[in-house]
Amino acid sequence: MYSDAPFSAASSPSEALPASDFSFKKLVIVGVGLMGGSLARALRRAPAEARGTIVGVGRTLDSIARALQLGVIDQAVAWSDPMALSQALSGADLIVLAVPVAQTGGVLERIAPYLEAQALITDVGSTKLDVLAAAATALGDKINQFVPGHPIAGRELSGVEAALDTLYAQRNVVLCPQPENTESACERIAAMWRSVGAKIHIMTPAQHDQVLAAVSHLPHLLAFALIEQLLTMGNLKLKLALAGSGFQDFTRLAASNSEMWRDICLANRSALLAELDGYLAVVNNLRRALEESDGLAIQALFERARTIRTHWSLSKNETS
Amino acid sequence: MYSDAPFSAASSPSEALPASDFSFKKLVIVGVGLMGGSLARALRRAPAEARGTIVGVGRTLDSIARALQLGVIDQAVAWSDPMALSQALSGADLIVLAVPVAQTGGVLERIAPYLEAQALITDVGSTKLDVLAAAATALGDKINQFVPGHPIAGRELSGVEAALDTLYAQRNVVLCPQPENTESACERIAAMWRSVGAKIHIMTPAQHDQVLAAVSHLPHLLAFALIEQLLTMGNLKLKLALAGSGFQDFTRLAASNSEMWRDICLANRSALLAELDGYLAVVNNLRRALEESDGLAIQALFERARTIRTHWSLSKNETS
Repeated sequence: MYSDAPFSAASSPSEALPASDFSFKKLVIVGVGLMGGSLARALRRAPAEARGTIVGVGRTLDSIARALQLGVIDQAVAWSDPMALSQALSGADLIVLAVPVAQTGGVLERIAPYLEAQALITDVGSTKLDVLAAAATALGDKINQFVPGHPIAGRELSGVEAALDTLYAQRNVVLCPQPENTESACERIAAMWRSVGAKIHIMTPAQHDQVLAAVSHLPHLLAFALIEQLLTMGNLKLKLALAGSGFQDFTRLAASNSEMWRDICLANRSALLAELDGYLAVVNNLRRALEESDGLAIQALFERARTIRTHWSLSKNETS
Repeated sequence: MYSDAPFSAASSPSEALPASDFSFKKLVIVGVGLMGGSLARALRRAPAEARGTIVGVGRTLDSIARALQLGVIDQAVAWSDPMALSQALSGADLIVLAVPVAQTGGVLERIAPYLEAQALITDVGSTKLDVLAAAATALGDKINQFVPGHPIAGRELSGVEAALDTLYAQRNVVLCPQPENTESACERIAAMWRSVGAKIHIMTPAQHDQVLAAVSHLPHLLAFALIEQLLTMGNLKLKLALAGSGFQDFTRLAASNSEMWRDICLANRSALLAELDGYLAVVNNLRRALEESDGLAIQALFERARTIRTHWSLSKNETS
């Protein structure tokens, strides 16, 4: 099924396979927060015969203890402890990185010395070109063991307490197979995501970063900017008192973690700048039409947008 | 209570009064769609002794028949029929305009010849300076009978079928009393809105238009623009396939009626241009920070916005 990967975009989701097509002996999740914890919870729902041990790795034992306490993982290990990390990785068939994208390189450098030949690595990072660059540096000739991934799912909450076993159900997961990856390595990572209900999309890292800049990173930046604008233009209290449900929807993304989104924006800087410039061109055209009271141009744009947004909404409701 | 109106902004909502403080003999609603129909449905919940006849007026008898059929109104009248309109307005104590803002002037010109001295008029339009200008032209020396208003409520759906008797519950209604209005006229309109559960804010038409440009009109324009940008930058199908819940929230406003929003943008053109320019300044600053990889500046802005947005969300949940 990866015959045309990795250099073309097969955008149709693959059909869901039964969960029994994925099994593992030892799965290591590095970073057991919302994303890693949700994956662990979802994988634990698999039949006992398909499921091995799930090891959670955190920065310190303290940071990972809560996940163990909640029954999200079977074992907890601190990556600052080389001996424990080495044991954790011994016999691991799959390693999932679920740390902020800026930590990818550092974590992989920690892991690399203990990485066994059978172990595959994937990640859940929101950007892919920078993650791949960090991975190539950290892993060297073991880069063939790393299949970059990005499950497009999340919540406004964070931390293992917010983890849900349904977080990935019906969600899209992008995989960006590398020329170094074998077909079976990619298929194994895809099978893991399908087993938790996700749909797989294959694309290149550059395509991924461009698409996500448009549909995720840019909306985040623009939502943060709208709140900043309220602050700079004055009358904040009155404006917030009268803001309704439209404002609520439009600015919901501005409640997101500022450090994480700074990192994502910086990591995907060039694709995001390109999308932002495209957006500014559209807004400036609209501004000119408004200045000239060009109702025809304004309505034509609004109506094009409304049609696309309405069709998208309908297609989404029909399939999910 | 309007001692400092109309030229200062008393932004705190007044306390809700019991529904029994508002009664009417004949209330005429011009335009029985989502907004007008919801008001009619809500007023019909009042005790029988407080409630008189609710007359619905539409462009044609056909257009208003559905509201009669659904039991939203007691009588249906076409404004194209001068005799019927004259009878409908005879003895009316309150007239509510619930038509698109661009139709305000035309509708008031129709009504003016039959307007009796006891009748008060208010409206539900999303812009106020232009509505007031149209009303002044159409009503002449009867302008004292018109108290401009704007209930900040709505749904993505439109038409009388979408009308809800709870649409205005806990919602904000802005009234913009004029120097010509008597205190009792303003109080009567306020009492009507309170009787359906709304909270009253008093401000000037200019303040209203500036605040609404910021928290409603600008977000609409920016949401439409984001969809247009997807269209202009290519890869639309792939982008829409991977768009998640953040995109869904951010662009929900772009599913709104394009004609209505064209009219609102044009009607509130100068306030909207000012807010848009303020927004573009913020976005251009953010763009520069991104180009220079200035993580400190980006995070500072994101964090300011996150704090405000999170507090707003908490305060909203606490009061509604």
